[in-house]
Amino acid sequence: MVTFRVEVRYLPGVEDPEALTVRRNLKILGYNSVSDVKMARIYDLIFENEKDALIQVEKLARDLLSNPVINSYTITKTGE
Amino acid sequence: MVTFRVEVRYLPGVEDPEALTVRRNLKILGYNSVSDVKMARIYDLIFENEKDALIQVEKLARDLLSNPVINSYTITKTGE
Repeated sequence: MVTFRVEVRYLPGVEDPEALTVRRNLKILGYNSVSDVKMARIYDLIFENEKDALIQVEKLARDLLSNPVINSYTITKTGE
Repeated sequence: MVTFRVEVRYLPGVEDPEALTVRRNLKILGYNSVSDVKMARIYDLIFENEKDALIQVEKLARDLLSNPVINSYTITKTGE
């Protein structure tokens, strides 16, 4: 088994609606010392074997798990 | 400035609807070598100064960003 972690973020300058909501709620709740909130989604993809897993992960990250217009992503191998 | 990263996951045994959807779509698209998909949400909370930031982050992670019945979370300090 091998696990690849895909971390998907919003590109700089693209407003993240969920982070915006969290930031607003923090102000309402009085957490004024939080100057910004950024969010990311993590997908841990577990493969039975490593053979051509990285090629598939790159394809999945690009085509299914992120939108190249608004997202960037990183891929890391996290464990055996 | 200091950044604290809160990573929120589903507890073992709790079904993650989003991960389930991704897993199903992978099978439909023919990615049969992916045996499992796990997901997490990451909140990067940026504070103006470090004074009592960790206490606030712990309170936020517990009360606002996660649901103790279905989620677990970790807090890490990621950078100045």
